[in-house]
Amino acid sequence: MSPVSPVSPGERWFEAHRERLLRASEVSRSREAWTPFVESPSRKRHPEGAHAAGRAAFEARLSRPFEMALPGVVGRVGAEVSPFTAEPLGVSYPRVEPEALMAGVREAWGSWRVASIEARVGVCLEILERWHQQTFENAYATTHTAGQAFMLAFAGSGASSLDRGLEALVAAWEAMEAMPKRARYERAFGRGAPARLEKRYRLMPVGAAVVFSCGSYPAWNAYPAILANLATGNPAVVKPHPDTILPVAIAVETGRAVLAEAGFDPNLLTLACDTWEAPIAGALLAHPDVAIVDFTGGQRFGAHIEASYPRLQVYTETAGCNAVVLDGAADLDAALAAIAYGLVLFSAQMCTAPQNIWVPRSGVVDGDRRVPFDEVSARLVAAIDALLADPAVAAGLCGALHSAKTTEEMDQLRTAAGDRVLRDGAPYAHPDHPRARTATPLLVRLDAADRGVAQRERFGPMAFLIAADDRAQALAGATADAGRYGAIACYAYTADPDWIPAVEDAFALAGASVGINLIRHRPINYTAAFSDYHVTGLNPAGTACLTDPSFVSRRFRVVQSKVELPD
Amino acid sequence: MSPVSPVSPGERWFEAHRERLLRASEVSRSREAWTPFVESPSRKRHPEGAHAAGRAAFEARLSRPFEMALPGVVGRVGAEVSPFTAEPLGVSYPRVEPEALMAGVREAWGSWRVASIEARVGVCLEILERWHQQTFENAYATTHTAGQAFMLAFAGSGASSLDRGLEALVAAWEAMEAMPKRARYERAFGRGAPARLEKRYRLMPVGAAVVFSCGSYPAWNAYPAILANLATGNPAVVKPHPDTILPVAIAVETGRAVLAEAGFDPNLLTLACDTWEAPIAGALLAHPDVAIVDFTGGQRFGAHIEASYPRLQVYTETAGCNAVVLDGAADLDAALAAIAYGLVLFSAQMCTAPQNIWVPRSGVVDGDRRVPFDEVSARLVAAIDALLADPAVAAGLCGALHSAKTTEEMDQLRTAAGDRVLRDGAPYAHPDHPRARTATPLLVRLDAADRGVAQRERFGPMAFLIAADDRAQALAGATADAGRYGAIACYAYTADPDWIPAVEDAFALAGASVGINLIRHRPINYTAAFSDYHVTGLNPAGTACLTDPSFVSRRFRVVQSKVELPD
Repeated sequence: MSPVSPVSPGERWFEAHRERLLRASEVSRSREAWTPFVESPSRKRHPEGAHAAGRAAFEARLSRPFEMALPGVVGRVGAEVSPFTAEPLGVSYPRVEPEALMAGVREAWGSWRVASIEARVGVCLEILERWHQQTFENAYATTHTAGQAFMLAFAGSGASSLDRGLEALVAAWEAMEAMPKRARYERAFGRGAPARLEKRYRLMPVGAAVVFSCGSYPAWNAYPAILANLATGNPAVVKPHPDTILPVAIAVETGRAVLAEAGFDPNLLTLACDTWEAPIAGALLAHPDVAIVDFTGGQRFGAHIEASYPRLQVYTETAGCNAVVLDGAADLDAALAAIAYGLVLFSAQMCTAPQNIWVPRSGVVDGDRRVPFDEVSARLVAAIDALLADPAVAAGLCGALHSAKTTEEMDQLRTAAGDRVLRDGAPYAHPDHPRARTATPLLVRLDAADRGVAQRERFGPMAFLIAADDRAQALAGATADAGRYGAIACYAYTADPDWIPAVEDAFALAGASVGINLIRHRPINYTAAFSDYHVTGLNPAGTACLTDPSFVSRRFRVVQSKVELPD
Repeated sequence: MSPVSPVSPGERWFEAHRERLLRASEVSRSREAWTPFVESPSRKRHPEGAHAAGRAAFEARLSRPFEMALPGVVGRVGAEVSPFTAEPLGVSYPRVEPEALMAGVREAWGSWRVASIEARVGVCLEILERWHQQTFENAYATTHTAGQAFMLAFAGSGASSLDRGLEALVAAWEAMEAMPKRARYERAFGRGAPARLEKRYRLMPVGAAVVFSCGSYPAWNAYPAILANLATGNPAVVKPHPDTILPVAIAVETGRAVLAEAGFDPNLLTLACDTWEAPIAGALLAHPDVAIVDFTGGQRFGAHIEASYPRLQVYTETAGCNAVVLDGAADLDAALAAIAYGLVLFSAQMCTAPQNIWVPRSGVVDGDRRVPFDEVSARLVAAIDALLADPAVAAGLCGALHSAKTTEEMDQLRTAAGDRVLRDGAPYAHPDHPRARTATPLLVRLDAADRGVAQRERFGPMAFLIAADDRAQALAGATADAGRYGAIACYAYTADPDWIPAVEDAFALAGASVGINLIRHRPINYTAAFSDYHVTGLNPAGTACLTDPSFVSRRFRVVQSKVELPD
């Protein structure tokens, strides 16, 4: 670390947050459980009135223009509708002309590009803390755009995403800190006196990044991408999903305020909103000042980006067909309850939700007996139903469907599945929001040999019970699909400890991460920053791994100068 | 480092070479001058008879098939001609069918993919040592293919490239070592007992790499690419330049022997030779098992690769128009002699050779006087002529022209330049090889406003004296061209220490490295492994930076498994 005393607001923030940064650095090596942020909206964890103030701040955003002094504003966009109330939010955002926006971004870059590591990281640490203080407000904004139930939204746009942002920031800081900054070099060339050189190694950013945030979980990938880019000196242009702008706009607004407070141009962090009808992505990605794209979203557009912009650094997280391989458990009902929880949580609209549940026809071990396929199926359905018995609990777990397309896709799948439907996925009645767009899990039986419908992500509460001959075929099928069609998080349950290495090996060779025998770890699809690596980059579910060194190390480059010293 | 005692040949080699690895690791941080390899062919530095044995080994390669048991051999290729003797080498190499080659590579991958870091790094360290022991043989092979004079070839395919290979190997090893391998994770979810998990993080390679080696300097980029790939677990398919196969084939043969000795499949390192008429590159790069391309060579094909294979990790080093900004010197003749040396060394066929020499019309400082443009020009020409006065010295400096195309290009440039030719670049008479293809520097005067012919690499001894109004315009023009057309190594001379920061800033913003006031550092274009970062990736001269963490960190990925421990 630089011993220089802080002289700028960014450097002062670096000092103020230094302990947090150092602790995060330690934990990213020990990979234990840790967060400096408050995960729960519980009254006990917050000052009096914090929740009400956050709600009021959210409500004050509604039915009015969201002002942001961006370059190149040419109009307004915004047509968000709450998945809970079915009412428009009534918020409009600036619509920007890409060339003019990027001209403003380029102008902003100047002083940031050459700012000290501490100044940039300090600004990012302060942004994180301001985001933290806004968690109530942002949780409401997330709820009424993404469709997350409030508790999930509080963690999902709060601590979970802040953690991931801090983890990326630490990774970027460590990568920059690890680089030598200067050296003395002395060597004799030929017979004369040696040449003595002073060498300087500057870390230079590569260019603007376009950060796509996704509709259902807007902060979790956007925060690390924004901070990894800003910390390494690259401006971030955030392109929110057209249906989930508000939580992202709030975060961008806050980040811009911190940048301005630190004496930098707020246009280092900008917002490029668009509509389904007139997307802005192509124009941004083709702009010569753009060097990086961080994309979270659907596999089709992700694959398009991966295939179409060889000039850019492309970091994607899209989707896959996450598998569960069910061989057995000491207590099968506990395992089925854990799986059921993964199927209902936020209506399986998380990229880590299980989808393809592989069950051997030869049966599944339950303690000291072997349970046949149909009984496994029935007990899984019962486990789902048990979770949803109380409407208030169901509402807290399932939240709402982000998109009406999911309802349509469920209808199509139900029709196509016919008598293979093991459990229908009907709407549930939300106790507070009668017009909420909801669904419980639709479960369909498939044979391993005829599982084409399961070989892609089904976004939302759709899952498949896939009958395999035995556990070996189940593992082979699950890992083959993960390798070929992608998987972000897979799962396995076995009562046979000797089989665990085979499971780990098979998923490793498929480039897919696996969680084994997760019972108390509930939700099974919880992914812990500092501890879990998210997405491997080794299968079609994405090219990036949050947030290992490969996620940050190319966002800056070394440019050296060497000066020969006179005699 | 793993405390495991070595159980395989690779791990034993790791132990045997551990001190070298650790020292290299230290030096890559201190960035001082160091090499563990012997740079000079001087008799005093080698066992009696080593030189003669190396020459004999080279001669024994000639006029016969070069045998290599590659997968998919379907014929023979090879039409190398010595640039010194103008005689064919008479060596033929296996021609492989790409699909069959890659099937063999895939089969070889299995055990390497999951081998320990120490086993893989140990094998790579041993390969480096065997290459070191082959330096005399390889220097002759380099001389009679690339056209390097023997002394340069000995360093160029010897210590300089071995250093760079070791540097890449250290970077890969450090990147892998730095990753956590396992962790205990404990956290309470809800009110029950905490979940306790064992997490394992496997480093998995990404896939086969195609390594293109270049015609004029075959080992320097190939060694680091081969070793960075092998160390991280990725097979390397080496595609040599059709005119410079032999030194690369020797290195591949040796690497294969070490792999086999360590109990691995030698097809982890293969050779894919082709011809100008029937190139193999496209088929290799399109193969689904290929994940990486390391390319060194011309800017046109490099740009094609950069634009055409978004699925691949692309690491390129191509070319640019390297500038010299000449503001002044305490002793201008010393500076001009250093520049002249860079113009004649290996006939400027090095990617770091200076090309565009910017000279203010307002004159250049020489101690306490200001020298007008024409005098600078005359004194530079005199400096070149002085270096070439003795034919034996000239031969040792200039070597031969790698390609007949260079002679053609020089003819065209001479004709087009007309009376702007400041110094003609005629062949010199090589004292030992009367049929050698040679040339001395052709120097052409340009005005800054009309410098189009200088805005790309002129491969070979062609350079431009570009007249600018003043040093500010010179610096602006040099850095603008570096940013727009690429530059690998730029230079500046100034007697004004207060101007140095401006020079460093301007080149840094253009993404180009710069050497300032290099006099005793001769050749000025010497690039030191462990100390100099080579290519920035921030201008069109290439996407990779040898060998910073970004060069290695994406060649492997983390795949994790987490297992919940029973109560």
